[in-house]
Amino acid sequence: VNDDTVPVDDRGLNYGDGLFETIRVQSGEMPLLSRHLSRLEAGCRRIGLAWPGRDELGAQLSTAVAGMTRGVVKLVLTRGSGGRGYAPPAVAAVRKIISCHALPDYPPENYTLGIRVRMCGTRLGDSPDTAGLKHLGRLEQVLASMEPDEGAAEGLMQDAADRIVEGIRSNLFLVRDGGLVTPDLTRGGVAGVMRAEVLDIAARAGIPVRVTDISLSELRSAREAILTSSIFGIWPVREIARVCEFESPGPMGRRLMAEISRLGVRDWAP
Amino acid sequence: VNDDTVPVDDRGLNYGDGLFETIRVQSGEMPLLSRHLSRLEAGCRRIGLAWPGRDELGAQLSTAVAGMTRGVVKLVLTRGSGGRGYAPPAVAAVRKIISCHALPDYPPENYTLGIRVRMCGTRLGDSPDTAGLKHLGRLEQVLASMEPDEGAAEGLMQDAADRIVEGIRSNLFLVRDGGLVTPDLTRGGVAGVMRAEVLDIAARAGIPVRVTDISLSELRSAREAILTSSIFGIWPVREIARVCEFESPGPMGRRLMAEISRLGVRDWAP
Repeated sequence: VNDDTVPVDDRGLNYGDGLFETIRVQSGEMPLLSRHLSRLEAGCRRIGLAWPGRDELGAQLSTAVAGMTRGVVKLVLTRGSGGRGYAPPAVAAVRKIISCHALPDYPPENYTLGIRVRMCGTRLGDSPDTAGLKHLGRLEQVLASMEPDEGAAEGLMQDAADRIVEGIRSNLFLVRDGGLVTPDLTRGGVAGVMRAEVLDIAARAGIPVRVTDISLSELRSAREAILTSSIFGIWPVREIARVCEFESPGPMGRRLMAEISRLGVRDWAP
Repeated sequence: VNDDTVPVDDRGLNYGDGLFETIRVQSGEMPLLSRHLSRLEAGCRRIGLAWPGRDELGAQLSTAVAGMTRGVVKLVLTRGSGGRGYAPPAVAAVRKIISCHALPDYPPENYTLGIRVRMCGTRLGDSPDTAGLKHLGRLEQVLASMEPDEGAAEGLMQDAADRIVEGIRSNLFLVRDGGLVTPDLTRGGVAGVMRAEVLDIAARAGIPVRVTDISLSELRSAREAILTSSIFGIWPVREIARVCEFESPGPMGRRLMAEISRLGVRDWAP
Protein backbone atom coordinates (compact mmCIF):
# COMPACT_ATOMS: atom_id res chain seq x y z
CA VAL A 1 0.00 0.00 0.00
CA ASN A 2 2.63 2.50 0.98
CA ASP A 3 5.23 1.64 -1.60
CA ASP A 4 6.86 4.71 -3.03
CA THR A 5 6.88 3.37 -6.58
CA VAL A 6 4.45 1.64 -8.95
CA PRO A 7 5.33 -0.70 -11.84
CA VAL A 8 5.55 1.04 -15.21
CA ASP A 9 2.76 -1.21 -16.50
CA ASP A 10 0.28 0.23 -14.00
CA ARG A 11 -2.99 1.04 -15.76
CA GLY A 12 -3.42 4.26 -13.82
CA LEU A 13 -0.18 5.55 -15.32
CA ASN A 14 -0.78 4.25 -18.83
CA TYR A 15 -4.49 4.98 -19.27
CA GLY A 16 -5.72 7.08 -16.35
CA ASP A 17 -7.54 3.89 -15.40
CA GLY A 18 -8.33 4.66 -11.79
CA LEU A 19 -9.85 7.05 -9.27
CA PHE A 20 -8.55 9.16 -6.41
CA GLU A 21 -9.61 11.02 -3.29
CA THR A 22 -7.79 13.79 -1.43
CA ILE A 23 -9.01 13.83 2.14
CA ARG A 24 -8.57 16.56 4.71
CA VAL A 25 -7.03 15.46 8.01
CA GLN A 26 -7.40 17.29 11.33
CA SER A 27 -6.03 15.87 14.59
CA GLY A 28 -5.75 12.41 13.12
CA GLU A 29 -9.40 12.48 12.03
CA MET A 30 -10.99 12.64 8.57
CA PRO A 31 -14.36 14.36 9.11
CA LEU A 32 -15.59 13.71 5.55
CA LEU A 33 -14.14 10.19 5.26
CA SER A 34 -17.55 8.58 4.93
CA ARG A 35 -18.48 10.84 2.01
CA HIS A 36 -15.13 10.22 0.31
CA LEU A 37 -15.55 6.46 0.58
CA SER A 38 -19.13 6.64 -0.69
CA ARG A 39 -18.05 8.63 -3.75
CA LEU A 40 -15.17 6.26 -4.37
CA GLU A 41 -17.39 3.20 -4.06
CA ALA A 42 -19.91 4.68 -6.51
CA GLY A 43 -17.07 5.53 -8.88
CA CYS A 44 -15.68 2.01 -8.70
CA ARG A 45 -19.11 0.67 -9.58
CA ARG A 46 -19.37 3.03 -12.57
CA ILE A 47 -16.01 2.06 -14.07
CA GLY A 48 -16.11 -1.59 -13.03
CA LEU A 49 -13.23 -1.39 -10.57
CA ALA A 50 -13.25 -4.01 -7.80
CA TRP A 51 -14.20 -2.26 -4.55
CA PRO A 52 -11.71 -2.95 -1.76
CA GLY A 53 -14.35 -2.30 0.91
CA ARG A 54 -15.07 0.59 3.28
CA ASP A 55 -13.64 -1.15 6.33
CA GLU A 56 -10.35 -2.06 4.69
CA LEU A 57 -9.80 1.38 3.16
CA GLY A 58 -10.97 3.21 6.27
CA ALA A 59 -8.57 1.25 8.44
CA GLN A 60 -5.62 1.79 6.11
CA LEU A 61 -6.31 5.51 5.86
CA SER A 62 -6.69 5.83 9.63
CA THR A 63 -3.35 4.13 10.14
CA ALA A 64 -1.76 6.46 7.58
CA VAL A 65 -3.00 9.65 9.25
CA ALA A 66 -2.51 8.63 12.88
CA GLY A 67 -0.78 11.48 14.68
CA MET A 68 -1.14 13.93 11.78
CA THR A 69 -2.21 17.29 13.23
CA ARG A 70 -3.43 18.77 9.98
CA GLY A 71 -2.83 17.80 6.40
CA VAL A 72 -4.12 15.82 3.47
CA VAL A 73 -4.13 12.10 2.76
CA LYS A 74 -4.43 11.02 -0.83
CA LEU A 75 -5.83 7.65 -1.88
CA VAL A 76 -5.37 6.46 -5.45
CA LEU A 77 -7.01 3.26 -6.72
CA THR A 78 -5.81 1.98 -10.09
CA ARG A 79 -6.93 -1.09 -12.01
CA GLY A 80 -3.50 -2.56 -11.37
CA SER A 81 -1.22 -4.03 -13.99
CA GLY A 82 -1.74 -5.99 -17.14
CA GLY A 83 -4.32 -6.41 -19.83
CA ARG A 84 -3.93 -6.09 -23.55
CA GLY A 85 -3.91 -2.46 -24.50
CA TYR A 86 -6.97 -0.66 -23.22
CA ALA A 87 -8.78 -3.89 -22.30
CA PRO A 88 -8.13 -4.83 -18.66
CA PRO A 89 -7.11 -8.37 -17.72
CA ALA A 90 -9.93 -10.75 -16.82
CA VAL A 91 -9.03 -10.47 -13.15
CA ALA A 92 -7.46 -7.14 -12.29
CA ALA A 93 -5.85 -6.64 -8.89
CA VAL A 94 -6.66 -3.11 -7.79
CA ARG A 95 -3.59 -1.14 -6.71
CA LYS A 96 -3.94 1.13 -3.67
CA ILE A 97 -1.61 4.08 -3.20
CA ILE A 98 -1.87 6.08 0.02
CA SER A 99 0.27 9.16 0.59
CA CYS A 100 0.26 11.93 3.20
CA HIS A 101 0.83 15.57 2.33
CA ALA A 102 1.18 18.91 4.05
CA LEU A 103 -1.72 21.30 3.76
CA PRO A 104 -1.14 24.10 1.22
CA ASP A 105 -0.42 27.37 3.01
CA TYR A 106 -3.59 29.33 2.21
CA PRO A 107 -3.75 33.03 3.19
CA PRO A 108 -6.30 33.54 6.00
CA GLU A 109 -7.81 36.35 3.91
CA ASN A 110 -9.10 33.74 1.48
CA TYR A 111 -11.72 33.01 4.14
CA THR A 112 -12.21 36.40 5.75
CA LEU A 113 -12.14 38.67 2.68
CA GLY A 114 -12.73 36.16 -0.09
CA ILE A 115 -10.68 35.41 -3.17
CA ARG A 116 -10.05 36.74 -6.61
CA VAL A 117 -10.97 34.21 -9.31
CA ARG A 118 -10.06 34.20 -13.00
CA MET A 119 -11.78 32.69 -16.02
CA CYS A 120 -9.56 29.94 -17.44
CA GLY A 121 -8.75 29.85 -21.13
CA THR A 122 -8.57 26.06 -21.14
CA ARG A 123 -12.01 24.57 -21.69
CA LEU A 124 -13.37 21.58 -19.84
CA GLY A 125 -14.43 18.73 -22.09
CA ASP A 126 -17.89 17.16 -22.08
CA SER A 127 -17.50 13.49 -21.16
CA PRO A 128 -20.89 12.12 -20.14
CA ASP A 129 -19.60 8.62 -19.38
CA THR A 130 -16.96 9.83 -16.94
CA ALA A 131 -18.64 13.06 -15.74
CA GLY A 132 -18.62 13.54 -12.00
CA LEU A 133 -15.84 11.00 -11.45
CA LYS A 134 -12.57 11.99 -9.80
CA HIS A 135 -10.64 9.84 -12.26
CA LEU A 136 -6.93 10.04 -12.96
CA GLY A 137 -7.17 11.85 -16.31
CA ARG A 138 -6.89 15.50 -15.29
CA LEU A 139 -4.88 17.01 -18.12
CA GLU A 140 -7.39 19.83 -18.67
CA GLN A 141 -7.00 20.88 -15.04
CA VAL A 142 -3.22 20.76 -15.41
CA LEU A 143 -3.36 22.97 -18.50
CA ALA A 144 -5.69 25.41 -16.73
CA SER A 145 -3.28 25.52 -13.78
CA MET A 146 -0.41 26.39 -16.11
CA GLU A 147 -2.09 29.57 -17.36
CA PRO A 148 -0.95 32.90 -15.87
CA ASP A 149 -2.83 33.15 -12.57
CA GLU A 150 -3.54 36.92 -12.72
CA GLY A 151 -3.23 37.03 -8.93
CA ALA A 152 -6.22 34.72 -8.62
CA ALA A 153 -6.46 31.96 -6.01
CA GLU A 154 -8.59 29.78 -8.28
CA GLY A 155 -9.84 29.63 -11.87
CA LEU A 156 -13.29 28.86 -13.22
CA MET A 157 -13.53 26.45 -16.14
CA GLN A 158 -16.11 26.67 -18.92
CA ASP A 159 -17.04 23.99 -21.39
CA ALA A 160 -16.96 24.52 -25.15
CA ALA A 161 -20.52 25.91 -25.01
CA ASP A 162 -19.43 28.58 -22.47
CA ARG A 163 -21.22 26.93 -19.56
CA ILE A 164 -19.39 27.47 -16.27
CA VAL A 165 -18.83 23.99 -14.86
CA GLU A 166 -16.47 24.22 -11.90
CA GLY A 167 -13.24 25.59 -10.47
CA ILE A 168 -9.97 23.92 -11.41
CA ARG A 169 -9.97 22.20 -8.00
CA SER A 170 -13.29 23.25 -6.50
CA ASN A 171 -17.04 23.45 -7.12
CA LEU A 172 -19.04 26.63 -7.58
CA PHE A 173 -22.20 27.80 -5.84
CA LEU A 174 -24.00 31.03 -6.63
CA VAL A 175 -26.58 32.75 -4.45
CA ARG A 176 -29.71 33.92 -6.28
CA ASP A 177 -33.16 34.74 -4.94
CA GLY A 178 -32.14 33.60 -1.47
CA GLY A 179 -31.19 30.12 -2.68
CA LEU A 180 -28.18 28.29 -4.07
CA VAL A 181 -27.47 27.55 -7.71
CA THR A 182 -24.71 25.11 -8.70
CA PRO A 183 -23.67 23.73 -12.08
CA ASP A 184 -25.11 20.53 -13.46
CA LEU A 185 -22.29 17.95 -13.64
CA THR A 186 -23.88 15.35 -15.91
CA ARG A 187 -21.71 16.36 -18.90
CA GLY A 188 -18.43 16.99 -17.12
CA GLY A 189 -16.73 18.11 -13.94
CA VAL A 190 -16.01 16.47 -10.62
CA ALA A 191 -18.83 15.98 -8.12
CA GLY A 192 -16.95 17.24 -5.07
CA VAL A 193 -17.32 15.87 -1.58
CA MET A 194 -17.64 19.35 -0.06
CA ARG A 195 -20.22 20.14 -2.74
CA ALA A 196 -22.22 17.14 -1.51
CA GLU A 197 -21.81 18.36 2.09
CA VAL A 198 -23.10 21.83 1.18
CA LEU A 199 -26.03 20.33 -0.72
CA ASP A 200 -26.92 18.32 2.39
CA ILE A 201 -26.57 21.36 4.64
CA ALA A 202 -28.89 23.28 2.32
CA ALA A 203 -31.44 20.45 2.30
CA ARG A 204 -31.46 20.25 6.10
CA ALA A 205 -31.71 24.03 6.47
CA GLY A 206 -34.48 24.41 3.91
CA ILE A 207 -32.30 26.52 1.59
CA PRO A 208 -33.59 26.05 -1.98
CA VAL A 209 -31.04 24.66 -4.44
CA ARG A 210 -31.11 24.56 -8.23
CA VAL A 211 -28.67 22.30 -10.10
CA THR A 212 -28.55 23.67 -13.62
CA ASP A 213 -26.40 25.05 -16.42
CA ILE A 214 -24.80 28.39 -15.54
CA SER A 215 -23.83 31.06 -18.05
CA LEU A 216 -21.51 34.02 -17.61
CA SER A 217 -24.51 36.36 -17.43
CA GLU A 218 -26.01 34.30 -14.61
CA LEU A 219 -22.68 34.53 -12.83
CA ARG A 220 -22.75 38.32 -13.21
CA SER A 221 -26.24 38.66 -11.80
CA ALA A 222 -25.64 36.49 -8.70
CA ARG A 223 -25.65 38.04 -5.20
CA GLU A 224 -22.77 35.92 -3.91
CA ALA A 225 -20.45 33.22 -5.18
CA ILE A 226 -18.57 30.62 -3.14
CA LEU A 227 -16.15 27.85 -4.01
CA THR A 228 -16.12 24.56 -2.14
CA SER A 229 -13.35 21.99 -1.70
CA SER A 230 -12.74 19.14 0.69
CA ILE A 231 -9.24 20.56 1.16
CA PHE A 232 -9.83 24.28 1.68
CA GLY A 233 -13.48 24.15 2.73
CA ILE A 234 -15.34 27.27 1.60
CA TRP A 235 -13.89 30.39 0.03
CA PRO A 236 -16.19 33.29 -0.72
CA VAL A 237 -15.47 34.97 -4.05
CA ARG A 238 -14.91 38.72 -3.95
CA GLU A 239 -14.00 39.24 -7.58
CA ILE A 240 -14.01 37.41 -10.88
CA ALA A 241 -11.30 39.11 -12.88
CA ARG A 242 -12.78 41.29 -15.65
CA VAL A 243 -16.28 39.90 -14.99
CA CYS A 244 -17.83 41.08 -11.73
CA GLU A 245 -17.49 41.56 -7.96
CA PHE A 246 -19.48 40.15 -5.06
CA GLU A 247 -20.13 40.90 -1.40
CA SER A 248 -17.56 38.70 0.27
CA PRO A 249 -18.33 36.99 2.46
CA GLY A 250 -22.03 37.58 2.00
CA PRO A 251 -24.76 36.35 4.35
CA MET A 252 -25.07 32.93 2.68
CA GLY A 253 -21.31 32.41 2.58
CA ARG A 254 -21.08 33.23 6.29
CA ARG A 255 -23.95 30.89 7.08
CA LEU A 256 -22.43 27.97 5.16
CA MET A 257 -18.98 28.58 6.67
CA ALA A 258 -20.54 28.52 10.13
CA GLU A 259 -22.25 25.23 9.27
CA ILE A 260 -19.14 23.47 8.04
CA SER A 261 -17.07 24.80 10.96
CA ARG A 262 -19.13 22.34 13.06
CA LEU A 263 -17.22 19.54 11.34
CA GLY A 264 -14.29 20.61 13.50
CA VAL A 265 -11.69 21.26 10.83
CA ARG A 266 -9.49 24.24 11.47
CA ASP A 267 -9.26 26.44 8.35
CA TRP A 268 -12.43 25.22 6.66
CA ALA A 269 -13.94 28.44 7.92
CA PRO A 270 -12.31 31.45 9.57
CA VAL B 1 14.76 5.36 -19.04
CA ASN B 2 14.24 1.63 -18.70
CA ASP B 3 13.40 1.49 -15.02
CA ASP B 4 10.56 -0.87 -14.31
CA THR B 5 8.92 1.41 -11.76
CA VAL B 6 8.00 5.08 -11.43
CA PRO B 7 7.66 7.11 -8.23
CA VAL B 8 4.10 7.34 -6.90
CA ASP B 9 4.25 11.12 -7.25
CA ASP B 10 4.65 10.88 -11.02
CA ARG B 11 2.31 13.34 -12.71
CA GLY B 12 1.44 10.88 -15.44
CA LEU B 13 0.03 8.53 -12.83
CA ASN B 14 -1.71 11.19 -10.76
CA TYR B 15 -3.12 13.44 -13.48
CA GLY B 16 -2.67 11.78 -16.86
CA ASP B 17 -0.13 14.56 -17.37
CA GLY B 18 1.82 13.11 -20.28
CA LEU B 19 1.74 11.65 -23.77
CA PHE B 20 2.58 8.30 -25.31
CA GLU B 21 3.37 6.59 -28.60
CA THR B 22 3.12 2.91 -29.48
CA ILE B 23 5.46 2.21 -32.38
CA ARG B 24 5.51 -0.82 -34.65
CA VAL B 25 8.88 -2.56 -34.93
CA GLN B 26 9.97 -4.81 -37.81
CA SER B 27 13.48 -6.25 -38.06
CA GLY B 28 14.82 -3.72 -35.57
CA GLU B 29 13.40 -0.84 -37.63
CA MET B 30 10.55 1.58 -36.90
CA PRO B 31 9.20 2.60 -40.33
CA LEU B 32 6.90 5.31 -38.95
CA LEU B 33 9.31 6.59 -36.29
CA SER B 34 9.61 10.00 -37.88
CA ARG B 35 5.83 10.50 -37.85
CA HIS B 36 5.58 9.30 -34.24
CA LEU B 37 8.27 11.74 -33.13
CA SER B 38 6.64 14.59 -35.05
CA ARG B 39 3.29 13.94 -33.40
CA LEU B 40 4.92 13.68 -30.00
CA GLU B 41 6.85 16.91 -30.48
CA ALA B 42 3.69 18.75 -31.54
CA GLY B 43 1.88 17.29 -28.53
CA CYS B 44 4.62 18.40 -26.16
CA ARG B 45 4.34 21.91 -27.57
CA ARG B 46 0.56 21.91 -27.07
CA ILE B 47 0.68 20.85 -23.42
CA GLY B 48 3.89 22.69 -22.53
CA LEU B 49 6.00 19.59 -21.95
CA ALA B 50 9.75 20.01 -22.42
CA TRP B 51 10.72 18.25 -25.65
CA PRO B 52 13.61 15.81 -25.14
CA GLY B 53 14.63 16.10 -28.80
CA ARG B 54 14.27 13.86 -31.84
CA ASP B 55 17.85 12.67 -31.79
CA GLU B 56 17.84 11.67 -28.15
CA LEU B 57 14.50 9.86 -28.33
CA GLY B 58 15.30 8.25 -31.66
CA ALA B 59 18.58 6.89 -30.34
CA GLN B 60 17.03 5.54 -27.15
CA LEU B 61 14.21 3.87 -29.06
CA SER B 62 16.64 2.36 -31.57
CA THR B 63 18.68 0.91 -28.74
CA ALA B 64 15.54 -0.51 -27.15
CA VAL B 65 14.37 -2.29 -30.31
CA ALA B 66 17.75 -3.53 -31.57
CA GLY B 67 17.37 -7.17 -32.52
CA MET B 68 13.59 -7.21 -32.18
CA THR B 69 12.16 -9.14 -35.15
CA ARG B 70 8.64 -7.84 -34.85
CA GLY B 71 6.84 -6.17 -32.00
CA VAL B 72 5.86 -2.87 -30.45
CA VAL B 73 7.86 -0.32 -28.52
CA LYS B 74 5.97 2.05 -26.25
CA LEU B 75 7.29 5.47 -25.28
CA VAL B 76 5.62 7.37 -22.44
CA LEU B 77 6.61 10.94 -21.58
CA THR B 78 5.26 12.31 -18.30
CA ARG B 79 5.78 15.73 -16.77
CA GLY B 80 7.81 14.02 -14.04
CA SER B 81 7.30 14.46 -10.32
CA GLY B 82 6.28 17.31 -8.12
CA GLY B 83 4.23 20.44 -8.28
CA ARG B 84 1.40 21.52 -6.05
CA GLY B 85 -1.73 19.73 -7.02
CA TYR B 86 -2.53 20.19 -10.68
CA ALA B 87 0.03 22.98 -11.14
CA PRO B 88 3.37 21.58 -12.32
CA PRO B 89 6.62 22.63 -10.66
CA ALA B 90 8.41 25.62 -12.20
CA VAL B 91 10.99 23.31 -13.72
CA ALA B 92 9.60 19.87 -14.46
CA ALA B 93 11.97 17.05 -15.40
CA VAL B 94 10.22 15.01 -18.08
CA ARG B 95 10.15 11.29 -17.30
CA LYS B 96 10.73 8.88 -20.20
CA ILE B 97 9.45 5.32 -20.03
CA ILE B 98 10.36 2.96 -22.85
CA SER B 99 9.03 -0.61 -22.92
CA CYS B 100 9.02 -3.36 -25.54
CA HIS B 101 6.03 -5.60 -26.17
CA ALA B 102 5.05 -8.58 -28.29
CA LEU B 103 2.74 -7.90 -31.20
CA PRO B 104 -0.87 -8.94 -30.52
CA ASP B 105 -1.68 -12.15 -32.38
CA TYR B 106 -4.10 -10.86 -35.03
CA PRO B 107 -5.93 -13.40 -37.22
CA PRO B 108 -4.69 -13.16 -40.85
CA GLU B 109 -8.36 -12.97 -41.91
CA ASN B 110 -8.52 -9.50 -40.40
CA TYR B 111 -6.57 -8.40 -43.48
CA THR B 112 -7.80 -10.79 -46.13
CA LEU B 113 -11.52 -10.92 -45.30
CA GLY B 114 -11.90 -7.84 -43.12
CA ILE B 115 -13.26 -7.50 -39.62
CA ARG B 116 -16.53 -7.29 -37.80
CA VAL B 117 -16.88 -4.01 -35.89
CA ARG B 118 -19.37 -3.09 -33.18
CA MET B 119 -20.79 0.25 -32.10
CA CYS B 120 -19.58 1.02 -28.55
CA GLY B 121 -22.02 2.05 -25.87
CA THR B 122 -19.44 4.23 -24.15
CA ARG B 123 -19.38 7.70 -25.69
CA LEU B 124 -16.25 9.66 -26.43
CA GLY B 125 -16.11 13.05 -24.76
CA ASP B 126 -15.60 16.34 -26.57
CA SER B 127 -12.39 17.91 -25.29
CA PRO B 128 -11.27 20.61 -27.72
CA ASP B 129 -8.15 21.53 -25.75
CA THR B 130 -6.80 17.99 -25.74
CA ALA B 131 -8.41 16.69 -28.96
CA GLY B 132 -6.05 14.80 -31.24
CA LEU B 133 -3.48 14.22 -28.50
CA LYS B 134 -2.44 10.72 -27.49
CA HIS B 135 -2.43 11.74 -23.83
CA LEU B 136 -2.45 9.39 -20.86
CA GLY B 137 -6.12 9.86 -19.92
CA ARG B 138 -7.82 7.04 -21.81
CA LEU B 139 -10.54 5.94 -19.41
CA GLU B 140 -13.25 6.17 -22.08
CA GLN B 141 -11.28 3.77 -24.27
CA VAL B 142 -10.85 1.43 -21.31
CA LEU B 143 -14.60 1.47 -20.60
CA ALA B 144 -15.37 0.84 -24.29
CA SER B 145 -12.93 -2.09 -24.26
CA MET B 146 -14.72 -3.59 -21.26
CA GLU B 147 -18.04 -3.85 -23.11
CA PRO B 148 -19.07 -7.28 -24.51
CA ASP B 149 -17.18 -7.53 -27.80
CA GLU B 150 -19.95 -9.27 -29.79
CA GLY B 151 -17.26 -11.11 -31.73
CA ALA B 152 -15.95 -7.82 -33.09
CA ALA B 153 -12.25 -7.08 -33.57
CA GLU B 154 -12.75 -3.37 -32.91
CA GLY B 155 -15.42 -0.93 -31.72
CA LEU B 156 -16.45 2.43 -33.13
CA MET B 157 -16.94 5.27 -30.66
CA GLN B 158 -19.50 8.04 -31.06
CA ASP B 159 -19.60 11.34 -29.21
CA ALA B 160 -22.63 12.53 -27.28
CA ALA B 161 -24.08 14.04 -30.49
CA ASP B 162 -23.89 10.62 -32.23
CA ARG B 163 -20.97 11.62 -34.47
CA ILE B 164 -18.68 8.69 -35.23
CA VAL B 165 -15.22 9.82 -34.15
CA GLU B 166 -12.86 6.84 -34.22
CA GLY B 167 -12.24 3.24 -33.27
CA ILE B 168 -11.25 2.43 -29.70
CA ARG B 169 -7.64 2.03 -30.90
CA SER B 170 -7.83 3.03 -34.55
CA ASN B 171 -9.02 5.70 -36.96
CA LEU B 172 -11.84 5.33 -39.48
CA PHE B 173 -11.89 6.03 -43.21
CA LEU B 174 -14.96 5.63 -45.42
CA VAL B 175 -14.98 5.41 -49.19
CA ARG B 176 -17.60 7.59 -50.92
CA ASP B 177 -17.76 8.86 -54.48
CA GLY B 178 -14.33 7.41 -55.19
CA GLY B 179 -12.69 9.39 -52.38
CA LEU B 180 -11.94 9.04 -48.69
CA VAL B 181 -13.93 10.53 -45.82
CA THR B 182 -12.53 10.55 -42.29
CA PRO B 183 -13.85 12.10 -39.06
CA ASP B 184 -12.90 15.58 -38.00
CA LEU B 185 -10.82 15.30 -34.79
CA THR B 186 -10.94 18.90 -33.58
CA ARG B 187 -13.40 18.09 -30.78
CA GLY B 188 -12.02 14.73 -29.68
CA GLY B 189 -10.24 11.57 -30.70
CA VAL B 190 -6.62 10.68 -31.36
CA ALA B 191 -4.95 11.84 -34.57
CA GLY B 192 -3.32 8.54 -35.45
CA VAL B 193 0.05 8.16 -37.10
CA MET B 194 -1.27 5.64 -39.64
CA ARG B 195 -4.16 8.03 -40.33
CA ALA B 196 -1.56 10.68 -41.19
CA GLU B 197 0.25 8.17 -43.41
CA VAL B 198 -2.96 7.31 -45.28
CA LEU B 199 -3.79 11.00 -45.69
CA ASP B 200 -0.35 11.51 -47.23
CA ILE B 201 -0.73 8.50 -49.52
CA ALA B 202 -4.08 9.88 -50.68
CA ALA B 203 -2.60 13.33 -51.32
CA ARG B 204 0.26 11.87 -53.36
CA ALA B 205 -2.08 9.60 -55.32
CA GLY B 206 -4.63 12.31 -56.02
CA ILE B 207 -7.37 10.54 -54.07
CA PRO B 208 -9.82 13.19 -52.81
CA VAL B 209 -10.22 13.34 -49.01
CA ARG B 210 -12.89 15.03 -46.91
CA VAL B 211 -12.29 15.52 -43.16
CA THR B 212 -15.71 16.08 -41.68
CA ASP B 213 -18.31 14.96 -39.15
CA ILE B 214 -19.68 11.49 -39.88
CA SER B 215 -23.13 10.26 -38.90
CA LEU B 216 -24.43 6.73 -38.71
CA SER B 217 -26.38 7.24 -41.93
CA GLU B 218 -23.21 8.34 -43.74
CA LEU B 219 -21.55 5.20 -42.44
CA ARG B 220 -24.41 3.13 -43.86
CA SER B 221 -24.18 4.67 -47.30
CA ALA B 222 -20.41 4.28 -47.70
CA ARG B 223 -18.95 1.91 -50.30
CA GLU B 224 -16.12 0.69 -48.10
CA ALA B 225 -14.80 1.28 -44.60
CA ILE B 226 -11.28 0.72 -43.30
CA LEU B 227 -9.63 1.14 -39.92
CA THR B 228 -6.04 2.32 -39.56
CA SER B 229 -3.54 1.82 -36.75
CA SER B 230 0.20 2.14 -36.45
CA ILE B 231 0.15 -1.29 -34.80
CA PHE B 232 -2.09 -3.35 -37.08
CA GLY B 233 -1.85 -1.24 -40.22
CA ILE B 234 -5.08 -1.39 -42.23
CA TRP B 235 -8.08 -3.62 -41.62
CA PRO B 236 -10.97 -3.49 -44.07
CA VAL B 237 -14.38 -3.61 -42.38
CA ARG B 238 -16.76 -6.32 -43.61
CA GLU B 239 -19.57 -5.72 -41.14
CA ILE B 240 -20.67 -3.22 -38.53
CA ALA B 241 -22.83 -5.26 -36.19
CA ARG B 242 -26.52 -4.44 -36.61
CA VAL B 243 -25.69 -1.49 -38.89
CA CYS B 244 -24.42 -2.53 -42.31
CA GLU B 245 -21.97 -4.60 -44.38
CA PHE B 246 -19.27 -3.61 -46.85
CA GLU B 247 -17.28 -5.15 -49.68
CA SER B 248 -14.14 -6.26 -47.84
CA PRO B 249 -11.55 -5.61 -48.91
CA GLY B 250 -12.89 -3.28 -51.55
CA PRO B 251 -10.83 -1.67 -54.30
CA MET B 252 -9.76 1.30 -52.17
CA GLY B 253 -8.85 -0.87 -49.21
CA ARG B 254 -6.72 -3.09 -51.46
CA ARG B 255 -5.04 -0.06 -52.97
CA LEU B 256 -4.17 1.48 -49.58
CA MET B 257 -2.95 -1.85 -48.22
CA ALA B 258 -0.70 -2.21 -51.24
CA GLU B 259 0.66 1.29 -50.62
CA ILE B 260 1.50 0.76 -46.96
CA SER B 261 3.01 -2.65 -47.67
CA ARG B 262 5.83 -0.66 -49.30
CA LEU B 263 6.82 0.47 -45.81
CA GLY B 264 8.10 -3.06 -45.34
CA VAL B 265 6.19 -4.09 -42.25
CA ARG B 266 5.00 -7.67 -42.29
CA ASP B 267 1.31 -7.85 -41.32
CA TRP B 268 0.41 -4.26 -42.13
CA ALA B 269 -1.10 -5.71 -45.25
CA PRO B 270 -1.74 -9.33 -46.26
